[in-house]
Amino acid sequence: MSLSIPPTMKALVIKAPFKIAVEERPTPRIVDANDAIVRVHQSGLCGSDLHWYRGHQPSSYNFILGHEVIGEVAEVGSAVKKFKPGDLVLAAFSTSCGECFYCSQQHSARCVHSQNFGTPMLDGAQAEYFRLPQADTTLFHAPVDIPKDKLVLLTDILPTGYQVAYNAKTLLSSDVPETAANAIQQQSGVCVVIGCGPVGLCAISAACTLFETVFATDIAPHRLESASRHGAIALPLEQLKQKLMEVTEGRGADACLEVVGHSSALQTALDLVRPYGAISSCGVHTQVAPLAGSQLYGKKMMFGRCSVNKYMEPALALLRENQALFSSFVEHKIPLSQAEENKVAKTVFDFE
Amino acid sequence: MSLSIPPTMKALVIKAPFKIAVEERPTPRIVDANDAIVRVHQSGLCGSDLHWYRGHQPSSYNFILGHEVIGEVAEVGSAVKKFKPGDLVLAAFSTSCGECFYCSQQHSARCVHSQNFGTPMLDGAQAEYFRLPQADTTLFHAPVDIPKDKLVLLTDILPTGYQVAYNAKTLLSSDVPETAANAIQQQSGVCVVIGCGPVGLCAISAACTLFETVFATDIAPHRLESASRHGAIALPLEQLKQKLMEVTEGRGADACLEVVGHSSALQTALDLVRPYGAISSCGVHTQVAPLAGSQLYGKKMMFGRCSVNKYMEPALALLRENQALFSSFVEHKIPLSQAEENKVAKTVFDFE
Repeated sequence: MSLSIPPTMKALVIKAPFKIAVEERPTPRIVDANDAIVRVHQSGLCGSDLHWYRGHQPSSYNFILGHEVIGEVAEVGSAVKKFKPGDLVLAAFSTSCGECFYCSQQHSARCVHSQNFGTPMLDGAQAEYFRLPQADTTLFHAPVDIPKDKLVLLTDILPTGYQVAYNAKTLLSSDVPETAANAIQQQSGVCVVIGCGPVGLCAISAACTLFETVFATDIAPHRLESASRHGAIALPLEQLKQKLMEVTEGRGADACLEVVGHSSALQTALDLVRPYGAISSCGVHTQVAPLAGSQLYGKKMMFGRCSVNKYMEPALALLRENQALFSSFVEHKIPLSQAEENKVAKTVFDFE
Repeated sequence: MSLSIPPTMKALVIKAPFKIAVEERPTPRIVDANDAIVRVHQSGLCGSDLHWYRGHQPSSYNFILGHEVIGEVAEVGSAVKKFKPGDLVLAAFSTSCGECFYCSQQHSARCVHSQNFGTPMLDGAQAEYFRLPQADTTLFHAPVDIPKDKLVLLTDILPTGYQVAYNAKTLLSSDVPETAANAIQQQSGVCVVIGCGPVGLCAISAACTLFETVFATDIAPHRLESASRHGAIALPLEQLKQKLMEVTEGRGADACLEVVGHSSALQTALDLVRPYGAISSCGVHTQVAPLAGSQLYGKKMMFGRCSVNKYMEPALALLRENQALFSSFVEHKIPLSQAEENKVAKTVFDFE
């Protein structure tokens, strides 16, 4: 069963660094019984898309970008059970099988059969249609009470922001497992968010539900304003240090969230966190981090990649309660035809 | 109330790097209402004592070393409730108040009122008597069914070895707090212990109670033999890597315990652990650890210092079940008078 799918479609193709083109391409079709073909309603432009665009990573080109997407199921393979044509759906930014070693531990982002779509491995969603493998375990039914351009945030950055805060909270009580489940329910402790870009703001909103006091810092003054709107006590670093020491009797932060992806930010986290405190980092660190051994002593750290499936539910709750706050996350909503002139972040391509 | 305490005592005094002397010193007396004076039965020589001896850390000298001790309470201050003269006791290697921010979270090793005895801050236990502050929360009643030279292991290295394994196990399930308490009960997962000195062997014995499979590696062949006796599959690093990949379907270890205290061992842990795996380190890292950002991504790490109070009970259980195994930990039992000729590790000074 399928909606009527045209043989070709408009797609935004990255041809080379700094070179994109809207092209007419064959519409993808079901290849595997677990596939779905999704007609795209809105498709976000992620900061990581810009890494390809700017040529920051060696790559082959001539593929379709895009992994932040809301759309409508157009066709499903014979093994897909949970979705049918016409369903409004969100997709996690990487596919997962639901059955492998990592999926069985809720670490869907490391599924051994995972495919990142919107990469040279698999065409993405900045097109009228895209093919999604492992549909049953990668798609989510989209709620209808929230605007689509906000729902797109649930496919990547909002769960990423949620997990970085959640992991810090769980790390804090990890060595007392019998009390860990209770600890996570209590809004307690002092948290510092380092980096107030879009993911940082998501992390702040999440941290406000988990910690009693949330500080935030960034080098850009306008980002501090945004951080403040999201509920943080937002200060330049030196002022933050002083205030933090005041409220913690000189101990330092119970938790630091590193949302920058640079080793200097990690070093700041080590400077601010107290002994037996937790550092949670979701930035992608490509450099060597020269961390002082004496500062590591007595600390807990967690790095990494968000398993969207695990955090979808709390991220949705966070979005539902803070819709107005997240309006600023999409500044440009444009048709694909304008893509070549508008290759900037905070953009959603609108196919409706 | 007090036992008869002589006005002077024999004590081993560190005078300068590589220079120790047995001297007649005034016997310490109660200074604070929470103090106890302990008559020493046996007092261990810890690897960290050798840091002072070898002049590895800048320090004033002319103090009494020793923090691994079993003895008999000789006198208590008026506020001490749990101990009385004549009680056989063990002391945690650092004192703790039981009430501060860290103590209330079971992190007694970071007690804000903590005093490390056997340092220039406070004379230690390589003497006939020593003074212990915060006696009620630092002393433990010693069990009588285990020889004293083994009980000495409970004051430092056995809890340290236990906690490095326990922390790895709890980190592994930290982001699923509702199942963490159950996970710790199950002997599951694959653990690699890096470094098979005395603390490494304690870590291996502990890991065998927490993990299904325990590997161990060290550059010294005779240490691999000991590791094997403690229950590990002990192999040189290259062989271990191959075997580890076989048993984990190429994933790598669920947990790595770093018990060396050198950044190269930390790097080995990063090389061996799987995504979303846990690294637990109890080595004291004094250098800068140049860790590759790409390897940190998706990992959890915990560093640090053992809070003896928290791990005393499971460490005692471990010792009780493995007494024969831990016999090798004390190779030399000598009177204090021979100390000047026998300044080597695995030594216990016998005062009885």
